[in-house]
Amino acid sequence: MLVEFGATRVLCTASVTEGVPRWRKGSGLGWVTAEYAMLPRATNTRSDRESVRGKVGGRTHEISRLIGRSLRACVDLKALGENSIVLDCDVLQADGGTRTAAITGAYVALHDAVTWLAERKALAGKVDKVMHRSVAAVSVGVIGGEPMLDLCYAEDVTAEVDMNVVCTGTGDFVEVQGTGEAGVFARDQLDALLDLGVAGCLELADAQRKALSS
Amino acid sequence: MLVEFGATRVLCTASVTEGVPRWRKGSGLGWVTAEYAMLPRATNTRSDRESVRGKVGGRTHEISRLIGRSLRACVDLKALGENSIVLDCDVLQADGGTRTAAITGAYVALHDAVTWLAERKALAGKVDKVMHRSVAAVSVGVIGGEPMLDLCYAEDVTAEVDMNVVCTGTGDFVEVQGTGEAGVFARDQLDALLDLGVAGCLELADAQRKALSS
Amino acid sequence: MLVEFGATRVLCTASVTEGVPRWRKGSGLGWVTAEYAMLPRATNTRSDRESVRGKVGGRTHEISRLIGRSLRACVDLKALGENSIVLDCDVLQADGGTRTAAITGAYVALHDAVTWLAERKALAGKVDKVMHRSVAAVSVGVIGGEPMLDLCYAEDVTAEVDMNVVCTGTGDFVEVQGTGEAGVFARDQLDALLDLGVAGCLELADAQRKALSS
Amino acid sequence: MLVEFGATRVLCTASVTEGVPRWRKGSGLGWVTAEYAMLPRATNTRSDRESVRGKVGGRTHEISRLIGRSLRACVDLKALGENSIVLDCDVLQADGGTRTAAITGAYVALHDAVTWLAERKALAGKVDKVMHRSVAAVSVGVIGGEPMLDLCYAEDVTAEVDMNVVCTGTGDFVEVQGTGEAGVFARDQLDALLDLGVAGCLELADAQRKALSS
Amino acid sequence: MLVEFGATRVLCTASVTEGVPRWRKGSGLGWVTAEYAMLPRATNTRSDRESVRGKVGGRTHEISRLIGRSLRACVDLKALGENSIVLDCDVLQADGGTRTAAITGAYVALHDAVTWLAERKALAGKVDKVMHRSVAAVSVGVIGGEPMLDLCYAEDVTAEVDMNVVCTGTGDFVEVQGTGEAGVFARDQLDALLDLGVAGCLELADAQRKALSS
Amino acid sequence: MLVEFGATRVLCTASVTEGVPRWRKGSGLGWVTAEYAMLPRATNTRSDRESVRGKVGGRTHEISRLIGRSLRACVDLKALGENSIVLDCDVLQADGGTRTAAITGAYVALHDAVTWLAERKALAGKVDKVMHRSVAAVSVGVIGGEPMLDLCYAEDVTAEVDMNVVCTGTGDFVEVQGTGEAGVFARDQLDALLDLGVAGCLELADAQRKALSS
Repeated sequence: MLVEFGATRVLCTASVTEGVPRWRKGSGLGWVTAEYAMLPRATNTRSDRESVRGKVGGRTHEISRLIGRSLRACVDLKALGENSIVLDCDVLQADGGTRTAAITGAYVALHDAVTWLAERKALAGKVDKVMHRSVAAVSVGVIGGEPMLDLCYAEDVTAEVDMNVVCTGTGDFVEVQGTGEAGVFARDQLDALLDLGVAGCLELADAQRKALSS
Repeated sequence: MLVEFGATRVLCTASVTEGVPRWRKGSGLGWVTAEYAMLPRATNTRSDRESVRGKVGGRTHEISRLIGRSLRACVDLKALGENSIVLDCDVLQADGGTRTAAITGAYVALHDAVTWLAERKALAGKVDKVMHRSVAAVSVGVIGGEPMLDLCYAEDVTAEVDMNVVCTGTGDFVEVQGTGEAGVFARDQLDALLDLGVAGCLELADAQRKALSS
Repeated sequence: MLVEFGATRVLCTASVTEGVPRWRKGSGLGWVTAEYAMLPRATNTRSDRESVRGKVGGRTHEISRLIGRSLRACVDLKALGENSIVLDCDVLQADGGTRTAAITGAYVALHDAVTWLAERKALAGKVDKVMHRSVAAVSVGVIGGEPMLDLCYAEDVTAEVDMNVVCTGTGDFVEVQGTGEAGVFARDQLDALLDLGVAGCLELADAQRKALSS
Repeated sequence: MLVEFGATRVLCTASVTEGVPRWRKGSGLGWVTAEYAMLPRATNTRSDRESVRGKVGGRTHEISRLIGRSLRACVDLKALGENSIVLDCDVLQADGGTRTAAITGAYVALHDAVTWLAERKALAGKVDKVMHRSVAAVSVGVIGGEPMLDLCYAEDVTAEVDMNVVCTGTGDFVEVQGTGEAGVFARDQLDALLDLGVAGCLELADAQRKALSS
Repeated sequence: MLVEFGATRVLCTASVTEGVPRWRKGSGLGWVTAEYAMLPRATNTRSDRESVRGKVGGRTHEISRLIGRSLRACVDLKALGENSIVLDCDVLQADGGTRTAAITGAYVALHDAVTWLAERKALAGKVDKVMHRSVAAVSVGVIGGEPMLDLCYAEDVTAEVDMNVVCTGTGDFVEVQGTGEAGVFARDQLDALLDLGVAGCLELADAQRKALSS
Repeated sequence: MLVEFGATRVLCTASVTEGVPRWRKGSGLGWVTAEYAMLPRATNTRSDRESVRGKVGGRTHEISRLIGRSLRACVDLKALGENSIVLDCDVLQADGGTRTAAITGAYVALHDAVTWLAERKALAGKVDKVMHRSVAAVSVGVIGGEPMLDLCYAEDVTAEVDMNVVCTGTGDFVEVQGTGEAGVFARDQLDALLDLGVAGCLELADAQRKALSS
C-alpha cells in the first residue's frame, strides 16, 4: 500500500514466508521484521544508493529497527504461528515524517498479510488474536516555541525538539523518542508534545480502521 | 516519470550535478550514467535488498551499464558541457521487460533534465544538439516458434529466444542483445525478431515525442 | 577514563584532531562524534567481532549516533572552533546500561579533551563556553509494575518498559527514548519513569563535577 | 588450457565438483558456471585487483555471466547429472576479444572435464549426449566503415560498432551482442557483421575439434 | 586476564564452545583459534576501527594467525576433544610487543579454559595431557648495534632488526620471525638475538606457572 | 617474468607509476609494494576467488606484506625518487614455496623496472644505487628429522618445521620465519635450517644475476 502524509510517499508491502529463521524454529512463535529504504531521488538532492556504497547506513538501520519493534508490539507472535513477515517500507518521496508514515502504513500492510494467512488457514490463532492492537505513529516537534504535529522537511530541520510517538489504537505508548535538536527541552514541553502525539495517533488509528474495512 | 508497460512499472528520474567526475574534468565533455534497481517486492516473491547483502548483483550491474550506454548514444556529450546526469530507474513492479521500459522512460527523464539545464543557461550547446537522437527499447522473443513483442514475465520465462532491441527514432540500432534461452536460434528467426523490434521501437519513439511535447 | 556502573565497565576516551571533516571546513564550527563498540567477550556468551563480519551492526550504529547527539547537545561547536573530537566508548564488560554509562563517561572524557585544547590555546572560546552544559544518562524501566533505576542485564531482559533518559546538569532533557519491550505503557507509567530518570541524572551530574574537579 | 588469439592469452580451466548447489539438489540436473577475471597487469596500464577493492566490477560480472550462459547452451544438464563444473577464465594478457577467447577456450576445457567425468562413470548420459553442441565466439566490428573480424585492442577502441557473436558448430546463434560504440548502426551493417561472425565461429569450431581429437 | 608488559596492556580471554567448526566434525579433534585487535586509542594517535572500515587489516590478520598457531602448538587437540576455544586478545594500550604479550597472556587464559572444561568433565583427556607444553613469547631487537629484550614502541621504531621469539617452557622454538627493518642482519646478530629471546621466554614461563598456581 | 620452481609457477610483473601515494608526497622517497594472489585453480582443488568472497584472506595479506618488505630491503628508496612500483605475483600453479618463488622472481621484475626508469631518466640515483642489494628466498624444512631445501607441496604438509629464509646476494638475512608445524624445534635444528637456507639463496642470487645479464 502507498501511504501519503503531505508530500511524503512511502510504499509499504508485507511479504509472507512460511517458517521462521533458524534460531526460532520449533518455538511455535512467528517473526515480524522491517526494512526501510529511500530511493536515491526521494529527497531533493540525490543521495547515493546504499547497495552501491556496499553497506546500509546507520540511519537506515535505526529506522528499520524502530519499525520492526513497533509492529511486533501489536502482534501476538504465538497466535501468528511459525510464519515470517517482512515489511518493506520504501520511501518514494520524502518530506519529513518518513519513519512514522512507514509505521502507520506498515500496520495496514501487516494486517492484510495476516488476513491473507487466515484465509489460507495458516495462522495458529484468529486474525483478531494475532493483531490484538493497532499501532500508528506521528512526528511532533517544537518550532518557534510552539508544539506542532506532522512536521514537513522544512519544519523538521528548524525544529528545536523533534519527537516520534508510536501509540496503540487505545492511546497507550509503544515507543517514545524525543531529541533536543537545537538545545534541550523542559518537562512541560515534553508533556505538551506527548499530548499532541497521542491525539495524532488516535486520529490515524481511525483512518487505519477505515482503510482496513474498505 | 513513471513508465508503465503492461504490469511493469519503472520510476525513472534524472538528477543533474554541475561538473563531472574527476577523471573527466577539463575535457569539456559531460557525463551520463544510470543506476537500475528493483524494490524487494517488485516481483512476486520477495528478493533480498542488495544494500543488505552488501553488494550489487551481476544482473543489476549489467542492466545499469546497458541503460547508461544506450542513453549516452543519444547525447552529444560535448554539447552537454561539463554536467553530469544520473538516471535512476527503480522498478516498483516487474512483469517482464523492465530494462527496456527503463531505457524508454529514462530517455524522457533525460530530455527533461537537459531542457531544465538549458533554461538555466548551463548547456554548452542547444537542447536539440545535445539530444540529437531519441532512443527507445523493446524486448522481443520467440514463443512456441512465433516471434512476439513485449513479453510479460510469464512469456519471458518460456521464451526460446529473448532479445532486447535498442533503436533510435529513425530505426537505427544502438544495441542488440539476443540470447537463446532454450537452445539456439537460426538466422531467419533473428531477422524476424529484428524486424519486430525496430517496428516496436518506432512506435515508442512516437509516444516519447508526445510525452515530451505535452 | 573507565566508567563503572555495577558490573558494567566502559572505557571512554576522547581523541582530538585539528581541523574538521571536509564538508565542514571554513564554517568555524567544530565537530564531535562518537563510536561505541563491545569487546567480543563483554557479555557472557561471546559475540562475533564486527570487524570480522565486515560490517557494523544496527544496534552499534544506533548507540554511536545517540552518544554523539547527546554530547553535541552540551558543546558550543562555535566556541570549540575547527577542532574534531572523537569519543570512543568501548565496553569491556556489559551488565545493562552500557549506552547510558558511555554517555556519562564520554562527557568527562570530552571535558578533559576541551581543557587540554584550552591549555594549547587551540579553542575559539573558553572551556566554560564550549562545555556550556553537562550531560549524563541513566536507564530506567518498569519491572513487575515498579519503576526502577539502573537496570542490570538480568533486570533489563525482564523489563516491561525500558527507557533511556539523557539530561543536562540542570535537569532538562537532551533525549528520551522509551520502548515497551513486553507490551505497551500508559502515560502515568511514563511520567513516573521520567521523574526517576531526571533524579538519577542529577546525581550523576554531581559525580561528574567531582571527577572533573579532582 | 591456454587460449591465444593474437596477443590475447586466456587461461581456461574446468573444475568439477560432485553434487550441485543446494537450490538444485534432487533435480537430476547438473550445473555449469563461469568466472572471468583479468590479472592486474593483463592490460598495458595496471588496474586494481577486484579482491583488493572488495568487489567484483560490473564488466567482470557481465562477462562471467555471458560465458556461463554460452556454455550452458551447449550442455545437456540432464545428461550431465548432478555434477557442477566451474569454468575459470583468467586473462593473462589482454589485446581485445578476451571474452570471446574465453568462451572458445572454456568449451574445450569443459569438454575435457566431461570426458574425465565419463571415465569415472560419473555422468548420467554419454559424453556426446552431454556435449550435444559445440560453441565458439568471435568479436567483429566496423572500423572506418569496414566490417572486420577479431579486433585487437587498438582496433577495438576505435571501432564504430562492436559485436560479439556466439555460435554453435553448425552456425546457429547462441548469443548476439552488438553495440554502437561511436553512434549507431544500420540494418545492412548488422547483417554484414553477422555473416562475418558466423564464418569466424565455424573456423574456430574446426580448431576446437582438432584440439579435442589430439 | 589482563597482561601488562611495560605500558602495553592486553586483555586476553578464552571463550569455550562445545563442538567444532563443520569441517572438523567427527574428527575427535578440538580447535583453538585467536583474534587480535587494537582499540582505536590503544596507540598515541587514534586509528580507525576495522569494523567501521569494513575489513580486517593485513597486520591484524597476520598477528591473529601467529597467536593461533603458537597456542595450537602447546595443545593436544585430540585430548581436548571436540571443543572449540577462541582466544580474544584486545590491546587496550600499546607500547611495543603487543603480539608477544598477547601470546603469553593467551596461554594463561587457555589453561584456565581447559581447567574449566575438565571440571565439567568435558575433556577427552586430562588437563596436563591437553596442555602438554607451555608457550610464551618475547620481542627482541638490535638497537644501535646492541641486542635488546622487550622493546617498547620508541625502541621498536628505531630497531635495526626486530624479532619475535615464541618458545615452550623448556626452551624449544615454536616460531621465530626476524625482520631487518633498517637493512639486513648477519648470522652472529641472529644468534645473539635467539639467545636473548630464549632466556626471556624461560623467565615468562616461570611467571605463567606462578599465575596458574595462584 | 614467469618463475618456475619445480611445479610451482608464479607470474611476477612490476608496474611503474610516476609519483607516490599521498602520505609520501614531497618526501623525495619512492615506494615499492607487492600484491600476491593465487588463481582459483592453482592448487589441486579449486579455491574461491577472493574478489568473489569480497575480501582478501589473511594468508594472502601476510604473504603480500612479506614480499613487499623483502623487496624494499634491497632498494634505496631515496635513489628511486618519487616513483611507485607495484609488484604483482600471481601464482598460476602452486606446488609449495610460492611465496619464496614470488620474492625471487619479483626481484628480477623490480630490477627490470628500475632499469626501464633509468632509461627514461626518471630515477633520482643510478640503477646500482637504487638496487644496492639483491634479494632471494627459499623455503626449507625438516622432514623425517632431516633438514631439506625447496619443499614441494606433498613435503610441505608433512614437514615438522617449515621455514622461509630471505637473504641478500652476500648471504645476510633480510627475513627469517620458522614455524614448528608439527610440534617444536630445537636450536641445533634451527641452525641447520639456516645454513641450508643461506646456501640456497646464494645459488638463486647467481641465477638472478644470469637472468638480468641476458
